[in-house]
Amino acid sequence: MFLIRWGAPGAEHTGVMLDGVRKDCSAHFSDWSPAFFRGDGMTRLRALLASATVLPDVPPYARWAACIPRPGKVVCIGLNYSDHAAEVGAKIPNEPIVFLKGTNTVVGPYDDVLIPRNSVKTDWEVELGIVIGSDARYLDSVADSASHIAGFCIVHDVSEREFQTERGGQWTKGKSCDTFAPTGPWIATPDEIPDVNSLALELDVNGVRRQAGSTASMIFDPYVLVHYLSQFMTLEAGDLIATGTPPGVGMAMKPPVFLAPGDVVSLRIAHLGEQRQTFRPA
Amino acid sequence: MFLIRWGAPGAEHTGVMLDGVRKDCSAHFSDWSPAFFRGDGMTRLRALLASATVLPDVPPYARWAACIPRPGKVVCIGLNYSDHAAEVGAKIPNEPIVFLKGTNTVVGPYDDVLIPRNSVKTDWEVELGIVIGSDARYLDSVADSASHIAGFCIVHDVSEREFQTERGGQWTKGKSCDTFAPTGPWIATPDEIPDVNSLALELDVNGVRRQAGSTASMIFDPYVLVHYLSQFMTLEAGDLIATGTPPGVGMAMKPPVFLAPGDVVSLRIAHLGEQRQTFRPA
Repeated sequence: MFLIRWGAPGAEHTGVMLDGVRKDCSAHFSDWSPAFFRGDGMTRLRALLASATVLPDVPPYARWAACIPRPGKVVCIGLNYSDHAAEVGAKIPNEPIVFLKGTNTVVGPYDDVLIPRNSVKTDWEVELGIVIGSDARYLDSVADSASHIAGFCIVHDVSEREFQTERGGQWTKGKSCDTFAPTGPWIATPDEIPDVNSLALELDVNGVRRQAGSTASMIFDPYVLVHYLSQFMTLEAGDLIATGTPPGVGMAMKPPVFLAPGDVVSLRIAHLGEQRQTFRPA
Repeated sequence: MFLIRWGAPGAEHTGVMLDGVRKDCSAHFSDWSPAFFRGDGMTRLRALLASATVLPDVPPYARWAACIPRPGKVVCIGLNYSDHAAEVGAKIPNEPIVFLKGTNTVVGPYDDVLIPRNSVKTDWEVELGIVIGSDARYLDSVADSASHIAGFCIVHDVSEREFQTERGGQWTKGKSCDTFAPTGPWIATPDEIPDVNSLALELDVNGVRRQAGSTASMIFDPYVLVHYLSQFMTLEAGDLIATGTPPGVGMAMKPPVFLAPGDVVSLRIAHLGEQRQTFRPA
């Protein structure tokens, strides 16, 4: 299944992709909320799609919303691709580097991204996102992770590098600016993906390929990450995990390149669709 | 006004302190939610308290809940007391050090705190909390901050030092464990506090004084912090900011001292009441 949300900010509806067409589920489900995931929501959705029920089309010009409502947490992993660690001159982490983005960052996959005032180093990062399907706390083994994953999606982990690393202390200031986590277009349930550890990721800036990688280069794969994170905090239904970025970020270019108003960034991950954002001044 | 919440986890009610007694407001307000703060909630609450309406007592053994529901963000400031920076051998920051705690950390002021599995360095930090009353984005000046502050409360910024600083990368793993942010007992509105920049803070472990300080030693005061943070992210109604801790944390003792199951930590800030937690194994 491919779960979407659509409609204006603050008035989003549920939907699914069927044969590449957006179908409206709002008569059946109010939102893909934590309660939906914690309860039997996915089972009921699967039954709905297997039934003879005809779902109306989503109005064609309706906004693509983030594929999940505002999550309880946006947990991110740093330097999780061996080839990206190499390009920024960092050594391979012994264990996952973990940080949080503010949940004010989550927007739709085609929404404008706001370049913060006084930003000089706004950068891009295509990432595989994990949507948590049931609360995960102190999982016994990596094999237990799969049952806590609702699905996967694209997350654009937009980052302001000066705020992140030259303004004192932790990365938060460069990671939590409003609109800095376009999410979607859809959650693909795990059964829709042949091998999550072999997905091509791409990102273009103004039509020029900047990032190209594969989740095969991840140091810690999604199942390892869910198990690992659950040793430190409860991952809750509806939480979002962004799993790190492949090579090709702007700060690693020689000379570095950053985003300016009017730039258009598009992102793709195999089976997870595409995003496209225009960058605008905040 | 002194706003409280009471009742079992997941079934909290609103209330206020009147002459030191907990009074039930649940017939009038469902929660101290972002919508309550964004709208005219505080004005309506003030009118209720000025009216002849008699509020029932809260049942005396009812649990003290966190004084706010789960916030959208818990933003924290590191090394914000000059005397604490000195005790840990850090230099005075040029600008605020900002990090986030997961919102899964927020619990009531008398709830048990869970020492994470495999923790060897669970530590304490009494902090002044700011509750945001209306969305703050790119404030023009520090003078604009006051109108965005709903009130102040105690936050216990519980921290696992090994997870925070010896396990790779950012501080998140040591700051976001479940139950690591007891919050309350009440939100004091700014008019109840003579001078927020001169509040005594204290913390005892098993009855022995470990932290004693004053907000007068803050490097960046609450109004500076709200203005500063609004330059990086929208602070939203109901968000919580923990403003840093005074000297006396366990990791700075010689030799360092950390918390063990059965330890009882109590915290006080002038005008903001007290907290007390028993530490238990997760």
